[in-house]
Amino acid sequence: MLIVGERINTSRKPIEPAVRARNAALIKDEALRQRAAGADYIDLNCGTLVEEEAESLVWLVQTVQEEEELPVCLDSPNPEAIRQALKVCKGKPLLNSITLEEKRYSALLPLIKEYGVSVVALTMDDQGLPTTLDDRLRLAERLVNGLTSAGVPLDDIYLDPLVRPVSTDPQAALTLTATLQRFHENWPEAHLICGLSNISYGYPLRKYLNRAFLVMAMAAGLDAAILDPLDRQLMGLLHATKVLVGKDQFGQDYLAAYRAGKIE
Amino acid sequence: MLIVGERINTSRKPIEPAVRARNAALIKDEALRQRAAGADYIDLNCGTLVEEEAESLVWLVQTVQEEEELPVCLDSPNPEAIRQALKVCKGKPLLNSITLEEKRYSALLPLIKEYGVSVVALTMDDQGLPTTLDDRLRLAERLVNGLTSAGVPLDDIYLDPLVRPVSTDPQAALTLTATLQRFHENWPEAHLICGLSNISYGYPLRKYLNRAFLVMAMAAGLDAAILDPLDRQLMGLLHATKVLVGKDQFGQDYLAAYRAGKIE
Repeated sequence: MLIVGERINTSRKPIEPAVRARNAALIKDEALRQRAAGADYIDLNCGTLVEEEAESLVWLVQTVQEEEELPVCLDSPNPEAIRQALKVCKGKPLLNSITLEEKRYSALLPLIKEYGVSVVALTMDDQGLPTTLDDRLRLAERLVNGLTSAGVPLDDIYLDPLVRPVSTDPQAALTLTATLQRFHENWPEAHLICGLSNISYGYPLRKYLNRAFLVMAMAAGLDAAILDPLDRQLMGLLHATKVLVGKDQFGQDYLAAYRAGKIE
Repeated sequence: MLIVGERINTSRKPIEPAVRARNAALIKDEALRQRAAGADYIDLNCGTLVEEEAESLVWLVQTVQEEEELPVCLDSPNPEAIRQALKVCKGKPLLNSITLEEKRYSALLPLIKEYGVSVVALTMDDQGLPTTLDDRLRLAERLVNGLTSAGVPLDDIYLDPLVRPVSTDPQAALTLTATLQRFHENWPEAHLICGLSNISYGYPLRKYLNRAFLVMAMAAGLDAAILDPLDRQLMGLLHATKVLVGKDQFGQDYLAAYRAGKIE
């Protein structure tokens, strides 16, 4: 299970002023705490800064990677910000994300090829967000074919079927889990990722819906997630589910997380 | 989702002395708190008292039902204790449980018919506990055929496929969810129940495994569970999962539980 730590996002209250003020200590601390809690990638999102997004993303990458080569996830729909950030990245980043929107796709594909990065591929195009399983399958097929034709190995592709809120679509979670199962059957070597929190939009105590959804999605084949690794309850469930779905057979990871105090 | 509150069990520390001392206040309080938290049935288990089990079970039923007709679940493998308790029960209890063990089956079936109760049917016989899905299917078929032939409606049957610990069988959770799906396909009118805690035997921080397992089992068709309704985290996940699997379409139950402070 690959974990992308979502906390360095300027839509979160303490992050935007920290990025504006170039408060490296706070950003490094957020990165290191997420890494210690089990994050494989540190997501970097400064989309709310609009005009200064590219410059801020470059600063974030350099700050997070200054002392240690922490793997980063470049989270932006802005090809120019991505291009500039890729230039300064150490190691192999995860790019979040490509879609089939014409402009975004054609701007990002050359960068993905040039830098040989892993990429989150969202099943959407210029017609907008998909609703049914079949919509998602068609979009995923176009994405997989396009990316692999361009030389991206399946193992570098993280398909994200895009979660809709259960408040507007009562079948959203069931559609998603059925979609994940089909994606896994069709492309067993590709990865399956999603953000959790969209599912609970419009509900109170959203964490319960997010947590239950993580368990259901992992049981359906999800092998990567964008989440807050400092949420110990969520991480406890994640480690437990790995045991239950047979991806941590002797409970080694669960027991290690327990002994390290990462859960409870 | 039918909830059987498991707290009145003499294997729990405060319960055994309370039952021995006929401390009605403590028992009534345990019953009423579980009812308020969402329990549909109050499980009564005094199996550790052995010699005085029948007498104690009768006292428990009378105590729990003294002021209010709370539905009870008679939890004993002892047909004589069940027989005596049934005589004093108000309303329609749930009997927990019948199996295909020859002596238990032949002693309990007449009582089930005479009193018209609902019954938990465990998929085991004198050969012991099943391991595979096919074992469980064969046992469930014999139980369903036997009970329905005796006039028990499917809607009164709660099939329990018996959970094995994931510590001894890494596939236990996956086998169980596959079994629940098959049971639901074969007998959509019957109910599916299980205890949660067996899954986590041998692990630390068992609650995470139990909670994740509840979510997975509900996604596979579980519609009843024996659990502690005072565990607000567990109940939060249960209510959330009901929303996600489409069994609480407008989130009415979730929002009611939230407003009543039953979760978080």
